[in-house]
Amino acid sequence: MTDKDARTPVSTQNPTETSEATEAGKSIGWHKAYVEGSRPDLRVPVRQVHLTNGESVTLYDTSGPYTDPLVDTDVRRGLAPVRENWIVTRGDTEEYAGRPVRPEDDGIKHTSPRGGLRNLDAVFPGRPRQPRRGREGRAVTQLAYARRGEITPEMEFVAIRENVSPEVVREEIAAGRAVLPANVNHPETEPMIIGKRFLVKVNANIGNSAVTSSIEEEVEKMTWATRWGADTVMDLSTGRNIHTTREWVLRNSPVPIGTVPLYQALEKVDGKAEELTWEIYKDTVVEQAEQGVDYMTVHAGVRLAYVPLTANRKTGTVSRGGSIMAAWCLAHHKESFLYENFEELCEILAAYDVTYSLGDGLRPGSIADANDEAQFAELRTLGELNRIAKSFDVQTMIEGPGHVPMHKIKENIDLQQEICEEAPFYTLGPLTTDVAPAYDHITSGIGAAMIAWWGTAMLCYVTPKEHLGLPNRDDVKTGVITYKIAAHAADLAKGHPGAQEWDDALSDARFEFRWEDQFNLALDPDTARAFHDETLPAEPAKTAHFCSMCGPKFCSMKISQDIRREHGGSRSEVEEGMAQKSREFAAAGNRVYLPIAD
Amino acid sequence: MTDKDARTPVSTQNPTETSEATEAGKSIGWHKAYVEGSRPDLRVPVRQVHLTNGESVTLYDTSGPYTDPLVDTDVRRGLAPVRENWIVTRGDTEEYAGRPVRPEDDGIKHTSPRGGLRNLDAVFPGRPRQPRRGREGRAVTQLAYARRGEITPEMEFVAIRENVSPEVVREEIAAGRAVLPANVNHPETEPMIIGKRFLVKVNANIGNSAVTSSIEEEVEKMTWATRWGADTVMDLSTGRNIHTTREWVLRNSPVPIGTVPLYQALEKVDGKAEELTWEIYKDTVVEQAEQGVDYMTVHAGVRLAYVPLTANRKTGTVSRGGSIMAAWCLAHHKESFLYENFEELCEILAAYDVTYSLGDGLRPGSIADANDEAQFAELRTLGELNRIAKSFDVQTMIEGPGHVPMHKIKENIDLQQEICEEAPFYTLGPLTTDVAPAYDHITSGIGAAMIAWWGTAMLCYVTPKEHLGLPNRDDVKTGVITYKIAAHAADLAKGHPGAQEWDDALSDARFEFRWEDQFNLALDPDTARAFHDETLPAEPAKTAHFCSMCGPKFCSMKISQDIRREHGGSRSEVEEGMAQKSREFAAAGNRVYLPIAD
Repeated sequence: MTDKDARTPVSTQNPTETSEATEAGKSIGWHKAYVEGSRPDLRVPVRQVHLTNGESVTLYDTSGPYTDPLVDTDVRRGLAPVRENWIVTRGDTEEYAGRPVRPEDDGIKHTSPRGGLRNLDAVFPGRPRQPRRGREGRAVTQLAYARRGEITPEMEFVAIRENVSPEVVREEIAAGRAVLPANVNHPETEPMIIGKRFLVKVNANIGNSAVTSSIEEEVEKMTWATRWGADTVMDLSTGRNIHTTREWVLRNSPVPIGTVPLYQALEKVDGKAEELTWEIYKDTVVEQAEQGVDYMTVHAGVRLAYVPLTANRKTGTVSRGGSIMAAWCLAHHKESFLYENFEELCEILAAYDVTYSLGDGLRPGSIADANDEAQFAELRTLGELNRIAKSFDVQTMIEGPGHVPMHKIKENIDLQQEICEEAPFYTLGPLTTDVAPAYDHITSGIGAAMIAWWGTAMLCYVTPKEHLGLPNRDDVKTGVITYKIAAHAADLAKGHPGAQEWDDALSDARFEFRWEDQFNLALDPDTARAFHDETLPAEPAKTAHFCSMCGPKFCSMKISQDIRREHGGSRSEVEEGMAQKSREFAAAGNRVYLPIAD
Repeated sequence: MTDKDARTPVSTQNPTETSEATEAGKSIGWHKAYVEGSRPDLRVPVRQVHLTNGESVTLYDTSGPYTDPLVDTDVRRGLAPVRENWIVTRGDTEEYAGRPVRPEDDGIKHTSPRGGLRNLDAVFPGRPRQPRRGREGRAVTQLAYARRGEITPEMEFVAIRENVSPEVVREEIAAGRAVLPANVNHPETEPMIIGKRFLVKVNANIGNSAVTSSIEEEVEKMTWATRWGADTVMDLSTGRNIHTTREWVLRNSPVPIGTVPLYQALEKVDGKAEELTWEIYKDTVVEQAEQGVDYMTVHAGVRLAYVPLTANRKTGTVSRGGSIMAAWCLAHHKESFLYENFEELCEILAAYDVTYSLGDGLRPGSIADANDEAQFAELRTLGELNRIAKSFDVQTMIEGPGHVPMHKIKENIDLQQEICEEAPFYTLGPLTTDVAPAYDHITSGIGAAMIAWWGTAMLCYVTPKEHLGLPNRDDVKTGVITYKIAAHAADLAKGHPGAQEWDDALSDARFEFRWEDQFNLALDPDTARAFHDETLPAEPAKTAHFCSMCGPKFCSMKISQDIRREHGGSRSEVEEGMAQKSREFAAAGNRVYLPIAD
C-alpha cells in the first residue's frame, strides 16, 4: 500500500464493484465501491467518480450504507454491526445485563402528567445486543491495543481509508497523537481516525428541540450530514426523549457519535445545576456508554479557581457545559466533581473504549475574550487530565475555541500541542470576527481552515444559524460543505500526500470544458449544476467551451486552449515553433475564438 | 483628530444630523449622518447605529447618497458632483471638446442591420460637463500633489473616513504605498483610499451580458453592491452598449469605478485579438478616461517571452486580458504593444488621474499552477512598470491571484511588496482549493482574509457563481458580505486601531440579549433578523434571554449573566465574596435559570 491520500485514484487497490451498483451509479456519474482489506469482512467504502474521458477518481466516503443501492436500510432495524465480529473475537469484552432504562433517562418523571416511557423494545423489536464492556475492568481501547503493538481491524480499515500503512495508524494512536473513536457498543461504525497526520475531519452537531424536531428528524439530520461529508456527529439533544433519540441515532449511524453527558445529567435534576452529583453524572455516562456513544465531551477543566477569571470578560462563559459547571462550583464553593472524580471516570471510559473530548468550558465567546487567562488556565488543566487519561489507556482529544482573531489563532494550536503532548485538537471554528451573525459559517470557516493547516485534527462545524436559532436541513448542509472546504484547504496546505489530485482532476475538467465531470467532482454537485443551468440550461451548454460568466468571446480558457492547440502542447514546442506558428496562425485567419453572431 | 478607526464611535466629531434623517433612521435602528471637515463642502458620510441602551456606534459607509432620505436621487440625472469645486479650484485642469462618441464605442457598426447609436444627450439631457484633463499634459494626480506636500480635500476626506491624520494619508500616497483613485472626470465619487495602512477594501465586479442584463440593471447592481459595502466597483461589461452602460454607472456611482479597457478595444476589432493595435487601445483609454473611469486594469506585464512559460500549466492562462494579450503576442510574434507603449500610456493616465491597476494576466487558475515561473516572471515586470508609472506621477496598484493553496499565499504578498516597493496589492481571493464550485466565495474568502492580514490592500470579491455563470442580485450580495467579513477579519488581525470596537459593540449586545442591537450592528441586519425570526418570530423573543439554538434552559450566556449578577461584576468582587455568595445563592434556591414549564 502506498502512502497516498485516499482521495487519489486507488486503482491499484481494485475496489470491488457490483454490476448493479455500477449501473446505478454510472447514470449519475459516480457510484459506491469498496476496497477490501486483509479479510473479507473488512470492506472500506469509497466514492468512485466516473469521468467522461474514461478515467475515474476515488474519494473518501462518509455516507455509510445509505448510498449503496445493494443495501436495504431500515431506520427501525438499524445498520448491520460491521465491527461486531472483530470486537467479539478479541475476547476481552463480555456481555452483561446492563443498567435498566428508566423513565427519567428520557426526561420523563413518574409523576409527569404527560406521556409515559417509550418502550424501546417496541421501537427496536428484537433489540439485538446486551451491552458489552471490558472483562474485569480491562481497558479495551484502541490505545491499549496500539501500545501493545497490535494492529486491529479498525486500524487496518482507517489505514485503507487514509492510504497510509496500518503501522502508521498504530504508531499515531499509541503516541496519543490520534484517536480512533469506536465504542464496543457501537459496532455499526465504519472506523475513522482523528489526528494531525491524517486528513482533517469535520464534526456536525445535531440535536432536538422540544418544539421543532422529532426523533425521525434527528436520524434524518445525521444521515443528511454524513451524506455531505460529516466524519462524526455530536448528538446535543436536550429535553424529552434524549435516551430514545440517541438510541435511534446510534443504531443508524455509520460514523462515531459524540455527546455531552452533562446535558442529560442536568435534565435528570430538573435543570438545577447545584443538584448535580457525581453519582448522577456517572450513571449517565454508563447509560450512554452502554448505548454506544463513541466520544464524550467532559468539562473537567472548569475548576473552581478559574471561575473568577471570567468575571471581567465581555461575554463570560459561553460553553453550555462550562457555565453549568461554573454554576455548580460557585453554588457549592467546591472543586468540580468532574475534576475530583476524573480517575474513576477514566476507568469507566476505558471499559467501553469511549474517547474523551476534553471540553473547553472556558473558551472565549467574543474576539475580545480570545486567548485570555481563563482560557489558558483551563488548557493547562486539560493537559494534566490528558496525561491521566492516557495512564488509563483512554483515547483523548482536546477541544478548542471559539472566537479568535486571525493573529491569535496560531498560539492556540501551538500551546495546545505543547501542553497536551500533541493530543488531537478539536476546535469550534474559530470565528475570526463577531460582526456577521447569519454568516458565522464563513467567519469561522476562515479560522477553521487556518487552525487545521497548523495542526488541528478535527473541526466542529458552525452553521449560518449560529447565535440565532436552530439549524434546519439547508443550514446543516451549508455548514458541512463550508467545513469540508476548510478541511480540504488545510489538507492541501499541509501537503497531505495526494490531496491535490482531487483539485487537479477538477481543474483538468474545467480547462477541458468537461462540465459534467466538474459537477460530479464538486463537493456539492447538485448546487454546482443548478448554478450553471440557471443561465445556460440547455443540454448543449454542458459541452460548450464557455459559460455565461464570460460568454464565448471572452472565455480565457478557450483562448488559452486555442493557443496551446495552435502552438504545440509543451514549452519547448512552443518556443521552437513560435515564429513559424505565428505565421500559420495569421494565415489561418488569426481568430482565437468564435465571435458571437453579429 | 485621533488616530482611530472610522468604525469606532466618532462622537467627538459631532456628525451633522438632520432631524428628518434622524427620525427616518431611528425607526430602523440606524441613520445616515455626515462628519464635516475643514470646509462646508467636505462632508464625510457615516452610518450611525442607535443602540437600545442609548449609545451609538458609527460605521464606515459606502452606500452613497442613496441611503440619505434628504437626497432625491434620479438615475437619469446622476449624482451631485461633490468633488467638482475642489478639482476646478486647483486650477491645473482644463475643459476641452473631447473625443466624439462613435457608434463602435457601443459595439455598433455602421453597417449593422440592428439598431443605431444611442443618443447620449437623450439619455442624460443637459449632460453637464465637457471632459477635463491636465493643462499641457500636466500630471493632475493625487500622487503628484502628495509628493509636493499638498493635502487635497480628497486626502482630508479619506483621513476623516479612516480616522487618521491627513498627513498620514499624504505620506502613504506620496510613498506609493496607497492610492486614492479619483479621475477628474468622476467628480461624483466620495474619496476612498487603498493601502495597507488603511482599512482593507473590497471591490465588486459588475458587467452586462447580451442576454441577461440591461443598463438599468447594471446601475442597480452597482448601487446594490455599494449598499452592502463594496468600496469600488469594476464595470466588466462586454458586448453592446458598453460606452452607454459605463456612462450611466459613472454618473450614478459614489465609489471609484474600474475597467479593463482591453475588453472594449477588442470589441472594436470584432473580437479578433490580432487586429488590436496600440492606436485602437489608446483611443479606448482616452474615451474611458474622459468618461471618468478611476482605475484601469492594464495587462502590460504579459510579455511575449512569458507566454511559453504557461505551456505546461494545468489551466493555461485564465485572465481574460492575459489570454487576449498572449494571443496577440503569438499572432504577431512581437512584444506586447502595452509593454512597448507603457510610457505614453502613463502620460495619458497622469492627465486625468486614472490609477493603474497593473493586471496579473498570468495569474494561476488552479492550485496546481500557483506561484509558478510564469506568474512570478510577470510580477517582476509589474515591478518594473510600477517604477515607470511612479516616475510619471501615476498612482499604481498591482493585481494578484487567483488560485493559491494556503501555504503558498504569504509568498505572494511578500514578493509583491518587495518587487513593487510596497505598492498596494489588489488580489482576487485567492481561492484555497478548486473542489468547491458554487462555494468559491468561501474557498476564496479564506484566502482573502489571510492575504489581507498580511498586507493586501484591496480584495476583489468572488461570488458563488464563479466558474459557473453570471452572478445575480443575491450572488452579488453574498459575494460582498463574504468579502467584508474577510476584510474586517484582516483589520482585526492587523490590529487596526479601533477595528475591534465594532465586534465589542456587537458582543456586548449579544451578552446582554439586546437582539435588535445585534441585528442593527450586523453586516447584514436583514438576514440576521430573518434567521432569528424563523424559529422565534414573536416580538417578545426580541428581548428574551435565549434563542431557539439552545433554548432557555441551556443558554450559557444567561447562566453566565446570572452568575455574574449573583457574585458581583468584577474579578476581585467575585473572589472576595465567593464563599459568602455561595451560601446566599443556595439560600435563594440555587436556580441559575428558569426551567421550561414541565
